[in-house]
Amino acid sequence: MPPNELYQFSVVSALMDGVASTGVPLRQVLAHGSHGLGTFRSMRGELIALDGECWQMRHDGSVRAADLTEGSPTEDFSPFAMVTDFAAEASTRAAISAKDGVEGVLARLAPNANNTHVAFRIDGAFKAITVRTAQGQCFPGEGLKDVASRQVTVTLPASRGTVVGFRSPQFLQGVAVAGVHMHYIDEGRTAGGHVLALESDGEVEVQVAELWRTVMDLPRGDAAFNAAPLALNDGGIKAVEG
Amino acid sequence: MPPNELYQFSVVSALMDGVASTGVPLRQVLAHGSHGLGTFRSMRGELIALDGECWQMRHDGSVRAADLTEGSPTEDFSPFAMVTDFAAEASTRAAISAKDGVEGVLARLAPNANNTHVAFRIDGAFKAITVRTAQGQCFPGEGLKDVASRQVTVTLPASRGTVVGFRSPQFLQGVAVAGVHMHYIDEGRTAGGHVLALESDGEVEVQVAELWRTVMDLPRGDAAFNAAPLALNDGGIKAVEG
Repeated sequence: MPPNELYQFSVVSALMDGVASTGVPLRQVLAHGSHGLGTFRSMRGELIALDGECWQMRHDGSVRAADLTEGSPTEDFSPFAMVTDFAAEASTRAAISAKDGVEGVLARLAPNANNTHVAFRIDGAFKAITVRTAQGQCFPGEGLKDVASRQVTVTLPASRGTVVGFRSPQFLQGVAVAGVHMHYIDEGRTAGGHVLALESDGEVEVQVAELWRTVMDLPRGDAAFNAAPLALNDGGIKAVEG
Repeated sequence: MPPNELYQFSVVSALMDGVASTGVPLRQVLAHGSHGLGTFRSMRGELIALDGECWQMRHDGSVRAADLTEGSPTEDFSPFAMVTDFAAEASTRAAISAKDGVEGVLARLAPNANNTHVAFRIDGAFKAITVRTAQGQCFPGEGLKDVASRQVTVTLPASRGTVVGFRSPQFLQGVAVAGVHMHYIDEGRTAGGHVLALESDGEVEVQVAELWRTVMDLPRGDAAFNAAPLALNDGGIKAVEG
């Protein structure tokens, strides 16, 4: 796809309803974009795609490169992911004292994108960055809210690395995560996860791009998706993806 | 685009908020699909695309071919439209006694598409088909609910023609119209509109296709879109698009 178009597979409400047993080969997702986030089959761990490489950040604290080899016994599949070929349109250096501070920086860099997706990355040093990693479903169909109740949360002190994120508009809550949704991986590719809190160590580099076109594939042939209620659970999504 | 992918420009919630002054050239929309529906700038009339031709059905009962000529003084723009290159995957002949009957036929023809868009067309004779046509906004920013309060409704007796429609999943209410959304044009291209009620004269031909990929463009550079709340108004959409 051209740069700065969003590709997404499935919707967040499907994860809320526990639709995570099938998905698509991750290599197919990454064919649409080199920068993004998502999850793995059975919601095992957190997915980050950065500069065309892709990792699974697991609840035991380990990080492994995703297996994109077709037909490999450990080939990775994703039941939900969002990616883009990120090309920064604006950037700034900013000190960020809390997660809310990211919103302010994005609003300054993309004032005309209130009602569309924004992709961003943040590179630099963090005094502290708190990440969670999902352990995965205990049984097929277990919803994200229950999966998240067993998530592992750690605070990484003095970490250098990259945040990959999207800010999505409120009217797409349930399709995506409304507001800021960020995953992090450190420079050594040894730690990371879904970002719950962060504090930069001095200024970090924030780069953004507005995404005005979305290509969305839904899970064709997935009986669990076809049977899912997919009712909007705004509070639930905020609780688990906030 | 390949057949049976949905292209949509903007979202229904933007019409609810009155975002209809700008839009995109209709020729750009129709480059993505030959079968679809939508509206025109300022919500003047109803749009139907059928076999690659496109008409504006107006509140005075007239029907005119849309002007797709770039730079023409009467070139048409659309603030909201959904189109696909329709290729029927299943079809049946059925007698349909009311609008609700369409849902039943679609459910039989596309049982695995509960949670994705379905495109359909219905060809044949109707004992009666009731259509509305929007007069358009009285002022820029007037919302669809108020625009619809002045709609013109007519019942066409003994009409032959084609219904072009989409059935969209509940979780996309506000992005599209959840449930069945249909526009009609008669065989002579002299009458039609947004379908409120219908009764077939004997059996009509119903053809469907499942749409698993959506390409959505949002109104870049449209200050009204950027400022719109786009809050979900489920009851309002049902009232005006039902």
